[in-house]
Amino acid sequence: MRTFLLATAALLIAAPAIAQSIDPSTVAVLVDQGTSHSEVMTTAEYLADVIGPRMTNSPAMREAEKWTQEKFTGWGLTDVHKEGFDFGRGWWIEKSSVRMVAPRPVQLTAIPIAWTPATNGPVTAPVIVAPLRSPGDFAQWKGKLAGKIVLTSAPGTGSEPKEAAFQRLSDEDLAKLDVYEEPTWDPGKLDQSLARAKFEGQLAKFLAEEGAVAYVTRSRSDGKLIHGEGYLHHVGETPKVPGIEMAAEDYRRLVRLAWTGKVPTLEIDSNVHFDDSDTKAYNILADIKGRDPKAGYVMAGAHLDSWVAGDGAADNGAGSAVVMEAARIIAASGIKPKRTIRFALWAGEEQSLYGSIAYIEQHLAKRPAWDHVPSADEFYYSWATRFPITPLAGHKELTAYFNLDNGSGKIRGIYAENNMAAVPIFREWLAPFASMGASTVAIQKTEGTDHQFMQAVGIPAFQFIQDPLDYESRVHHTQLDTFDHLKAADMRQAAIILAAFLLDAANADKPLPRLPIPTQPAVTDPFAAPKGE
Amino acid sequence: MRTFLLATAALLIAAPAIAQSIDPSTVAVLVDQGTSHSEVMTTAEYLADVIGPRMTNSPAMREAEKWTQEKFTGWGLTDVHKEGFDFGRGWWIEKSSVRMVAPRPVQLTAIPIAWTPATNGPVTAPVIVAPLRSPGDFAQWKGKLAGKIVLTSAPGTGSEPKEAAFQRLSDEDLAKLDVYEEPTWDPGKLDQSLARAKFEGQLAKFLAEEGAVAYVTRSRSDGKLIHGEGYLHHVGETPKVPGIEMAAEDYRRLVRLAWTGKVPTLEIDSNVHFDDSDTKAYNILADIKGRDPKAGYVMAGAHLDSWVAGDGAADNGAGSAVVMEAARIIAASGIKPKRTIRFALWAGEEQSLYGSIAYIEQHLAKRPAWDHVPSADEFYYSWATRFPITPLAGHKELTAYFNLDNGSGKIRGIYAENNMAAVPIFREWLAPFASMGASTVAIQKTEGTDHQFMQAVGIPAFQFIQDPLDYESRVHHTQLDTFDHLKAADMRQAAIILAAFLLDAANADKPLPRLPIPTQPAVTDPFAAPKGE
Repeated sequence: MRTFLLATAALLIAAPAIAQSIDPSTVAVLVDQGTSHSEVMTTAEYLADVIGPRMTNSPAMREAEKWTQEKFTGWGLTDVHKEGFDFGRGWWIEKSSVRMVAPRPVQLTAIPIAWTPATNGPVTAPVIVAPLRSPGDFAQWKGKLAGKIVLTSAPGTGSEPKEAAFQRLSDEDLAKLDVYEEPTWDPGKLDQSLARAKFEGQLAKFLAEEGAVAYVTRSRSDGKLIHGEGYLHHVGETPKVPGIEMAAEDYRRLVRLAWTGKVPTLEIDSNVHFDDSDTKAYNILADIKGRDPKAGYVMAGAHLDSWVAGDGAADNGAGSAVVMEAARIIAASGIKPKRTIRFALWAGEEQSLYGSIAYIEQHLAKRPAWDHVPSADEFYYSWATRFPITPLAGHKELTAYFNLDNGSGKIRGIYAENNMAAVPIFREWLAPFASMGASTVAIQKTEGTDHQFMQAVGIPAFQFIQDPLDYESRVHHTQLDTFDHLKAADMRQAAIILAAFLLDAANADKPLPRLPIPTQPAVTDPFAAPKGE
Repeated sequence: MRTFLLATAALLIAAPAIAQSIDPSTVAVLVDQGTSHSEVMTTAEYLADVIGPRMTNSPAMREAEKWTQEKFTGWGLTDVHKEGFDFGRGWWIEKSSVRMVAPRPVQLTAIPIAWTPATNGPVTAPVIVAPLRSPGDFAQWKGKLAGKIVLTSAPGTGSEPKEAAFQRLSDEDLAKLDVYEEPTWDPGKLDQSLARAKFEGQLAKFLAEEGAVAYVTRSRSDGKLIHGEGYLHHVGETPKVPGIEMAAEDYRRLVRLAWTGKVPTLEIDSNVHFDDSDTKAYNILADIKGRDPKAGYVMAGAHLDSWVAGDGAADNGAGSAVVMEAARIIAASGIKPKRTIRFALWAGEEQSLYGSIAYIEQHLAKRPAWDHVPSADEFYYSWATRFPITPLAGHKELTAYFNLDNGSGKIRGIYAENNMAAVPIFREWLAPFASMGASTVAIQKTEGTDHQFMQAVGIPAFQFIQDPLDYESRVHHTQLDTFDHLKAADMRQAAIILAAFLLDAANADKPLPRLPIPTQPAVTDPFAAPKGE
């Protein structure tokens, strides 16, 4: 313990020379702007309530692209524009209703699966329980699905939630995050994703050939939570049979009734729409110009797109609103940073981080081209395994990227993403914010959102540690992702700290230390036993 | 601690002479019948899935009345019959859908409020936020509600659930229940309920006079849980304006949009039905005849009726199925008890314990008659304050009543309901079941279900301590009250222990000790300061 304290003290003494933290009076200006003059909840409310769920390339996402650019421009940011990339079809829900009409009437909790077609008015048919997990299951059901609503999931069993739905991180929780782990690479995930993506297409084809009326999957959560996620957004891959995700409780009731001989009849009205008006998706970019055009730039980003079961409030209206608010705070404070500060709102994150990858490929680095159109999962799980990486001219210009995408919980610190040399610098930058609950620098490497693949091409790209709240337990991708589940004081705090980090990074004498550009997916151990032994 | 241990030992030694616990070989028979031959989950599944929600006097409740009698008869019980009492109208939901159609389309989570009328097809109208809490609020909104869908609740704020949704009782939890508390009586609850019931009628009248299209209340829980409870079931009191209860998240979105000038338009289709074919409700009764007709009888009961948001599985399909299973176990075991064992499935519990009160008034004791038709709340909160109690001939014949109505959690013990002399007897009866998790006898007095008013007229009436599971946290009266949330092993255990307790009580040499028949609502303290000082 003493050793640790001495080491920390040494870093704190050494840090100022490296970190070039912003002026203390600047912190006060940011806090004032971010509290008394905050607009973050107004921004989040507009995104969640007025615009609503923002599936990439849906009309609502187009509205969000337009509205966010207007906001950035209104706050005085420059070079506000959108950058397009190939994505596919948009899709949105106008109306949907699923009822059991026999053996008794029940209104069911269900949602159309994204990018499956409409029913063209209500359709009524009996269900058949046909769990389909792999092509090997098809033979058993061939010739039996015509005219039926096919329940394709296994029924499963209910949950016994033994953790509180709403959580804040304790000191103990935070300490656990600060343990270095060697990077590993599990090729099994890629194999699984390839098999899953292939099966998704095979299943869609099988159901269409067999003449199924619709198919129904079971939600992976209980408590009547539904998600409605689907991945066949490429034009030409659109399935022919309407798909519905149903609340686990409702799904299992159907299965029990069918299994006891009282086969239910459902009425499904899935009034959904495709939008092929523009198959390009767009990232939104806006700058606060730096004083030194040769010093490069720093960037904050969050994805603006969402799923559709809720309003895309915590995922990721919250992160988008915080990034926008950091831009507003800095612009309103009138501070002129040394480096340019760029704000990015990504599209296509929910499918496969498509927006941030498009930015990488347009500005930062290339990886080998695909010889086929990959599925979303294949794209996600194999993108970072494609070597060599060829840096573009812009690679060295981006000196730091900060991402926000873990709900609306306050910032408790930052993940250093295995960049040990950045740790003492971040400690210095966090120092003013300990009283706001943010004081942890954790070495851990994190995945799953838009900093991930920047980091994978050697950009110093980070995300913050946030209090979990009820994000993972009940809000993430479900119909509970509404403005109600956002915490205003948390989001104000996050915007202030993000603004400070951007100014710290923009004004630092030296850019943040960089990790070498990777040449392979992970650590190799020449004497390790082969997998499976 | 030692004193306590000595006292317990003394009770255990003294107990057999009082308790006359059943033969150990009988326990083994009950356990075998209740495990290897259990039918409790088949019974519960039929009630929840096939029959579904059983609002008193609805067609589904009529089906349940018929089916449960058939089951009792099939298991060999005798004198199976129904006993009617005045209740009011039945009501049920055929179909319901609530959507926001402007400023953007959203499918809302909502349910018709019980005993409010249908919309007669979809109605579309703008909302108005008019929180109405008392008649004093009417003036502000007079002349403004015509043609509107009126949001009558305050928006409130979201929850931060800091306890796990699923719980089992720890030893510490159980110990806390075994602390004697003097009976108290809070006349404020009656006053509040009178005011609330009166206001419910006034509000219905005000909304009708003002020409409101429909009214919407906010769910008291978040997480998109809905209940749909309503209390105006008396014929002639039925409101004229359709009522909807809406998920808190959806309700608050409407309020925010309205408050920021983007007044939403809703489309409501509430296709509900009244049933006036028979305004009597019915309790179901079935007996296992005792050897000694002069020894009186013991009884177990659970309410068969339910609310309508879910399937009435945990509340109280579970209790009904356990009571029915205890009957089946005893009947199948071929044991002939000394006293008759009666099984009761009550109606009208959800409105005001109407069914068990009807049984009391028909068989056990009278209280002074009403001079008016009371509201459900007034009935519930004042019934036990009406003195004197006049015992009927049947009062002394009922020597023990056991109730089940706290979800599907296993039995962890029994509440002695301030009947201290029963404590050592119950300890003896519980002794064989410690390894099944049931060993606590807690002195606490409990309320809220059908043993309550039997006890209030001096009948030895009890309910069991049950593991809470997710009953209170998310299942009780919500759309999550489905078969999925029942625990099979727990229900098998409960049926075995209930069967054993019934046999213990039926075969005991002496009837259970009785408390004196009450003559006033609670303990009086002559020197206490008047309320409010």
